[in-house]
Amino acid sequence: MAPLYLLRLQTALASHFDTIHVVTLPDGEAFKTWESLNLIFDALLRHGCDRKTVLFALGGGVVGDMTGFAAASYMRGVPFVQVPTTLLAQVDSSVGGKTAINHPLGKNMIGAFYQPQRVICDLDTLNTLPPRELSAGLAEVIKYGPIADMAFLEWMEAHVAELLARDPATMAYAVRRSCEIKAHVVGQDERESGLRAILNFGHTFGHAIEAGMGYGRWLHGEAVGCGMVMAARLSQRLGLVEDGFVVRLTRLIERVGLPVVAPVLDGADNAGRYLALMRVDKKSEAGEIKFVLIDGSGNALVRGAPDHVVAEVIETSCHA
Amino acid sequence: MAPLYLLRLQTALASHFDTIHVVTLPDGEAFKTWESLNLIFDALLRHGCDRKTVLFALGGGVVGDMTGFAAASYMRGVPFVQVPTTLLAQVDSSVGGKTAINHPLGKNMIGAFYQPQRVICDLDTLNTLPPRELSAGLAEVIKYGPIADMAFLEWMEAHVAELLARDPATMAYAVRRSCEIKAHVVGQDERESGLRAILNFGHTFGHAIEAGMGYGRWLHGEAVGCGMVMAARLSQRLGLVEDGFVVRLTRLIERVGLPVVAPVLDGADNAGRYLALMRVDKKSEAGEIKFVLIDGSGNALVRGAPDHVVAEVIETSCHA
Repeated sequence: MAPLYLLRLQTALASHFDTIHVVTLPDGEAFKTWESLNLIFDALLRHGCDRKTVLFALGGGVVGDMTGFAAASYMRGVPFVQVPTTLLAQVDSSVGGKTAINHPLGKNMIGAFYQPQRVICDLDTLNTLPPRELSAGLAEVIKYGPIADMAFLEWMEAHVAELLARDPATMAYAVRRSCEIKAHVVGQDERESGLRAILNFGHTFGHAIEAGMGYGRWLHGEAVGCGMVMAARLSQRLGLVEDGFVVRLTRLIERVGLPVVAPVLDGADNAGRYLALMRVDKKSEAGEIKFVLIDGSGNALVRGAPDHVVAEVIETSCHA
Repeated sequence: MAPLYLLRLQTALASHFDTIHVVTLPDGEAFKTWESLNLIFDALLRHGCDRKTVLFALGGGVVGDMTGFAAASYMRGVPFVQVPTTLLAQVDSSVGGKTAINHPLGKNMIGAFYQPQRVICDLDTLNTLPPRELSAGLAEVIKYGPIADMAFLEWMEAHVAELLARDPATMAYAVRRSCEIKAHVVGQDERESGLRAILNFGHTFGHAIEAGMGYGRWLHGEAVGCGMVMAARLSQRLGLVEDGFVVRLTRLIERVGLPVVAPVLDGADNAGRYLALMRVDKKSEAGEIKFVLIDGSGNALVRGAPDHVVAEVIETSCHA
């Protein structure tokens, strides 16, 4: 993002701060590591930055997550501001205070709940987003429908063309409504002791896809899009939702350009591989995988499921 | 600590937890690094530990600081319990929720404010403490006198022999009173926006000594002991306290076996080296070093001081 928006941000901040230092981070989940985080710490210490320093996270979700965790940890906490430049970050990761880096054994395993002072969304940035990233961002927008707001789901179904064309008024509404829903949920459960977990609809399967393929192969939103299809199918198998709703949601996910067929992670024991990856998810408890399931009328619940049912959903989803 | 107390702790916990895993950390400030921290994350993930996992920090301040930061960051926060086995950790670092690791450019630069669920002090552990560590721990006990409680200072002066002999009742009172004072101060300012900084009496000079000599050469408490002499001398130069009080405090620090002559850190520009190291301290603001100074009647204040006065105190303290 640096070449495109750095100058604009620097200009806007120039009158408010004596000194502005720039740290450029490598982008992509594969770089959400301790080594990248340390680039921020090195720069802060080299410049003698104190506790009044404010970190501005200009970029997508990876930059926001890393900058947020750096802000949470540097001198045990300095203020930070999210300036998300991707749809995914604007509608999801920049709001709610989840910050983290990845560990070789799991995604987002090391981090903090740490709220930004504010989140600034410049919708102009979406015009330069590659189509694949636009679609990935729409996965997190779609998510808010089945878990919280069926009217929003219907609105999206009626505006797929405008969303893909990045019509400004349509994008503005999509971003605003997404942030409203997220803020409402997080406001009731900041530290994810219960309700907040519903925001991870599609993420349990999605994280397994990301980890199993190697971070960065599929975009996070792509994995979540496919993961929502799988979670909806699991909800149907458990009798929570009609098959028609699974078809309807799958259709919307496909129309915005997201994958709806899951990747085979292991030719010999594909379902076993998925299950093993999901067992290390942060939401699991004592080895039981927790799934976010939906009821087809705008409500979500978090519960476990028998391994053989999950395995069947995985096989169906990989060979749809 | 593992060989001495691990079995005792495991036995005590066995009836409360299904599974107990042990991670052994290298001890000493030099090992308070990301690499050591990662030993904890690796073990947690390898064993599939979830958010209900409780970390027990059995050991001294280094183990407590690292385990606390690991607990603060693992899956964005799991509960932890401090089980300090050194006097220093019992009277200071285990109480108050400061956790951190070191960065090559500064001590405790990366961490979190994160409170333990509880702190368990087994005074029997003090019997096996090497004399040098006992003295180092007494530095943090002495600290509480000049900043908060002159009666406690007098009590220490009257009980140096019993403290060095580890008389159980005397140690119990020293630990209890230290924790009371620390809890009182932290309770008013958990995130160190003001008052809490007085607990760092002796630490600004002390951190420079530790960083300048290389972590681990002097024990933290030794550096703090000498740092208190320097901070008292600076208070005297600035007209805050009588010279007699500096002599009195120096005498007590020396009697418990701590160094009172500061090390020369750079033969060519010793004061300059000290000042440079102190400028990256977390308490500095916009390059101004903040010192905790005392008034000789149980009160402390935090303020800057002219470089030339600080330099003179450094030179006097290095060649006392």
